[in-house]
Amino acid sequence: MGPGPSNVHPKVLDAMSKAPLGHLDPQFIALMDEIKFLLRYTFKTENDSTFVLSGPGSLGMEACLVNLIEPGDKVVVCVGGYFANRMAQIIEKIGGQAVVVKETWGRAIEPQKLEDTLKQNPDTKIVAFVHAETSTGALSNIKQLSEIAHKHNCLVVADVVTSLGATNVLVDDWKLDAVYSCSQKGLACVAGMSPVSFSEEAVLHIKNRKTPIRSWFNDLNLLESYWKGQDKRAYHHTAPSNQFYGLHEALIILKEEGIENAWRRHKENSAKLISKLKMIGLDPFVPEGERIPNLITVKIPFGIDEVNVRNELLNKHNLEIGAGLGELAGKIWRIGLMGYNSNEKMIDYCINAIKDVLK
Amino acid sequence: MGPGPSNVHPKVLDAMSKAPLGHLDPQFIALMDEIKFLLRYTFKTENDSTFVLSGPGSLGMEACLVNLIEPGDKVVVCVGGYFANRMAQIIEKIGGQAVVVKETWGRAIEPQKLEDTLKQNPDTKIVAFVHAETSTGALSNIKQLSEIAHKHNCLVVADVVTSLGATNVLVDDWKLDAVYSCSQKGLACVAGMSPVSFSEEAVLHIKNRKTPIRSWFNDLNLLESYWKGQDKRAYHHTAPSNQFYGLHEALIILKEEGIENAWRRHKENSAKLISKLKMIGLDPFVPEGERIPNLITVKIPFGIDEVNVRNELLNKHNLEIGAGLGELAGKIWRIGLMGYNSNEKMIDYCINAIKDVLK
Repeated sequence: MGPGPSNVHPKVLDAMSKAPLGHLDPQFIALMDEIKFLLRYTFKTENDSTFVLSGPGSLGMEACLVNLIEPGDKVVVCVGGYFANRMAQIIEKIGGQAVVVKETWGRAIEPQKLEDTLKQNPDTKIVAFVHAETSTGALSNIKQLSEIAHKHNCLVVADVVTSLGATNVLVDDWKLDAVYSCSQKGLACVAGMSPVSFSEEAVLHIKNRKTPIRSWFNDLNLLESYWKGQDKRAYHHTAPSNQFYGLHEALIILKEEGIENAWRRHKENSAKLISKLKMIGLDPFVPEGERIPNLITVKIPFGIDEVNVRNELLNKHNLEIGAGLGELAGKIWRIGLMGYNSNEKMIDYCINAIKDVLK
Repeated sequence: MGPGPSNVHPKVLDAMSKAPLGHLDPQFIALMDEIKFLLRYTFKTENDSTFVLSGPGSLGMEACLVNLIEPGDKVVVCVGGYFANRMAQIIEKIGGQAVVVKETWGRAIEPQKLEDTLKQNPDTKIVAFVHAETSTGALSNIKQLSEIAHKHNCLVVADVVTSLGATNVLVDDWKLDAVYSCSQKGLACVAGMSPVSFSEEAVLHIKNRKTPIRSWFNDLNLLESYWKGQDKRAYHHTAPSNQFYGLHEALIILKEEGIENAWRRHKENSAKLISKLKMIGLDPFVPEGERIPNLITVKIPFGIDEVNVRNELLNKHNLEIGAGLGELAGKIWRIGLMGYNSNEKMIDYCINAIKDVLK
């Protein structure tokens, strides 16, 4: 019950242990087509450029940014945690100019701050932000942030690593131009893959670049050809077939439940966990209304040896919870309640284990 | 029996279907340490910077190049096939200047050509080449190529994607400064991971760069900290834990066999397959002495509908063999005999299936 990976459905593990197919096998290409279809369902998008990258979520972060940003481009990035800060680092490394909108760690991004920054920086081309900040537990209103960005003629890059599959992510309705996620959180699969989706506007922006994309592995033009399906497909890299089997199975499980039902389940279980955590003296770190439903952060009570608590949870109860990251190290714990784990049994298991260790 | 992935040992699939551990779990970090140790054994190196990237071999290619090359750097790349050509493309995309040494597809790189090119380009900083060119079946003498490169004060980037684990790769003895491989060929694991190793000289070169590395995901400095082991470790990305379980198991199987024994097995089985292929009228595409032992290429006999043959092999005999790539499309077949598949049973299965389809 850390910030991910979490336990996965036995069917997912079973799928992963099938014999590997060649990445050019017609059956495997059909599986890739189904993954595309299932991801469009999951992202709530009609974007044709919707597929999965053969690496973890942080590869997805770099891929979205390196395709959209040309050297010297001004990018406004809203930073209220560790992962948004990573976005700023990547922007600089690939040659962009990052303008940071600072937010308090543990709070949703204040939309007015973005509005003000964009007014002061009318030459901004791209706005980037994190939907669910895994390092703090805060959920931002990316619908509103996206509206502000578009009002200022910017394209939007949104990190939905922790939110996808667990809480509302509406790529088309919210006009998110480039989104990336991971496989091991709301999608309830193993770690190591990054689903992405690019809007038509983003694809056009990339096709019209004046400078080459500074990556071959992440070049959207090459990746699009790779995911074109039987007959039209161009070779790019050797896909991790067994990982794809697992993702395919996890996405089918999610579709069978119905994504709206999955969102509701995460919301309801989160409320239950929080109320029980309060009963054992652990208060949420993030104010109500700004909390990620599948990643709950709590303040560590005064005088507790937090490393010791986590070690005891792991060694005595076989339970992982997450430590604080960056400036929140030693101040909060991060409890994941996502995917296959978001159920009453796990809530009770977690509460009883923490109660036992803290007693 | 295509160019990879191939069948894997049931123990590898079994390992991959274990419950995912958190990427910060002490047990998982111990597993990462063991992978480092096993990879040093496999690469025949003492390099501390030896670990696995969380993506396929082509990510490894980009990672080696993007770390070593600064914008404007002159890089001599020996191209005798599709994958070396990809190296040249990446060099240009990340801002380097590629000087190509051309070789006939299907032949080992002629060392004299590299020598001549380096004499004409004394400002070259890096030399890049492919050991076993998967697209043609030709094996180059990278020991000799590396000596020439070092004589001209260049660092060496070597692609050992298809050779590692199946034929001699001696990273330290041959002074290879940056090497990358994949998981699904000689290492007999599933696809999707890229083992890499960097020499001390390469690490120093990277630390002394004048410009930032144009990638966050592939930044060696960050990756090194990530692989430092318990206590000293800095978070980078969420590792694909189940993939790592599989790789760990495959590397243990390889170590138990003994890597020299694995090299010998591939060599002997390759000779047997080639002699049987000749008996059914299929001649090797690559001259003797320049052949990759685990990837055999044969000329397609005149008048054969090659796509039809591959389809029948797949549909009737459940056997995959590889098509030609690039300029060799329609001219050769590529037969993989690697890892778990390199045995007499598979040789006979392959020969009987091809004989049946060609009759």
